[in-house]
Amino acid sequence: MKTFNAQLAEVEKGKVTITCEFSESLTQHHGFFHAGVITSLADNACGFAALTMMPENAEVLSVEFKINFVKPAKTDKLIAIGKVLQSGKTLTICEGYVYDSTKEKLIAKMQATMIAVYQ
Amino acid sequence: MKTFNAQLAEVEKGKVTITCEFSESLTQHHGFFHAGVITSLADNACGFAALTMMPENAEVLSVEFKINFVKPAKTDKLIAIGKVLQSGKTLTICEGYVYDSTKEKLIAKMQATMIAVYQ
Amino acid sequence: MKTFNAQLAEVEKGKVTITCEFSESLTQHHGFFHAGVITSLADNACGFAALTMMPENAEVLSVEFKINFVKPAKTDKLIAIGKVLQSGKTLTICEGYVYDSTKEKLIAKMQATMIAVYQ
Amino acid sequence: MKTFNAQLAEVEKGKVTITCEFSESLTQHHGFFHAGVITSLADNACGFAALTMMPENAEVLSVEFKINFVKPAKTDKLIAIGKVLQSGKTLTICEGYVYDSTKEKLIAKMQATMIAVYQ
Repeated sequence: MKTFNAQLAEVEKGKVTITCEFSESLTQHHGFFHAGVITSLADNACGFAALTMMPENAEVLSVEFKINFVKPAKTDKLIAIGKVLQSGKTLTICEGYVYDSTKEKLIAKMQATMIAVYQ
Repeated sequence: MKTFNAQLAEVEKGKVTITCEFSESLTQHHGFFHAGVITSLADNACGFAALTMMPENAEVLSVEFKINFVKPAKTDKLIAIGKVLQSGKTLTICEGYVYDSTKEKLIAKMQATMIAVYQ
Repeated sequence: MKTFNAQLAEVEKGKVTITCEFSESLTQHHGFFHAGVITSLADNACGFAALTMMPENAEVLSVEFKINFVKPAKTDKLIAIGKVLQSGKTLTICEGYVYDSTKEKLIAKMQATMIAVYQ
Repeated sequence: MKTFNAQLAEVEKGKVTITCEFSESLTQHHGFFHAGVITSLADNACGFAALTMMPENAEVLSVEFKINFVKPAKTDKLIAIGKVLQSGKTLTICEGYVYDSTKEKLIAKMQATMIAVYQ
């Protein structure tokens, strides 16, 4: 989040939005947002969304995720939305959507499994 | 690669190794390597590995990948290995392994689909 | 489809619904629908949905999919819905949802990559 | 297993082999083994492999899996191998390989997350 200068834009129970402004350091060789940035935003949005459903003393870890890259990330801002599909005591299943700045073009879609850890 | 200061350590037909030294900017809140860094390294290793099997004028794009996080990334160097499982004219299926600096602890495992694009 | 006695219930452009009535031969050891049946229905629904977006002479093949099992499949009928998320010339990305007979309980969620083949 | 007439061929700690003979009822429209059969075998092999690492009173459930279809399943017998990549108290990460009868052609590759349940 810090490295990308990403912003937590909206938080509600089971749904979180993160935005990330374009910067040269976040691009791949065509000058678009790098897949790693897109993936991290989606993963973070899913993780935070899962956390909104967990007890206060829980932390969240990504067990695994799968992401499809749908369209080139040619935009000046990424909008990542994480949504909880199913929350259980241990595992939470989330979906992540990464859109361009207009929120009309879907750039990537994630399906993730998160785990609550108590330390 | 540039942002992470990652190094292309080894390249052979169907197999690529990338390394990445620890740096404060690549960590999450526990001080370990961030999942986004681990994922990007695995994705890049898979992409390069796929590229070694493609015609010279091809570029490679990630269609999708799935990654499991196996162990905490508590190490001073990540070693990411991408291997081609099956290469076709259009699609190439790869596996990515991310190890700690000793190459004995598996930190993450990826299974990825890459596509050759001609521009 | 034949083995499962599944029915193609609804077909529209980019969306297909398949249903499957309970039968003893489709169960696992707890007497619920087997994960393999759930997965096949979701895969078939995604494949047919992708096919509705492809040229007439195209066939569809599953490149890969990922499925999360959300709730136990304790129901007398499965309703599987496949939706196209993004359709391209070669690849089509789909989502599959498997519900119980009330269509209120989500049993499984799939994210799939389909390819058009011309023979 | 019963429906497919599959056989548990080998079981060792962390690795399980299942075989399945060709039968008309297990085919898709080209006369090859159906993707659903391939997937179920891989899932079962992964599940059993995970079970060999769990306490005696544990049962195993598939949390999720991802499978890539690598080659057409044109063979008279499928050989599915499940291997444990990492086993933890709650979750076990497995890999599944489905080969043809010669064990030389890789037909599909799975990466799966299993969970131990105590009832």
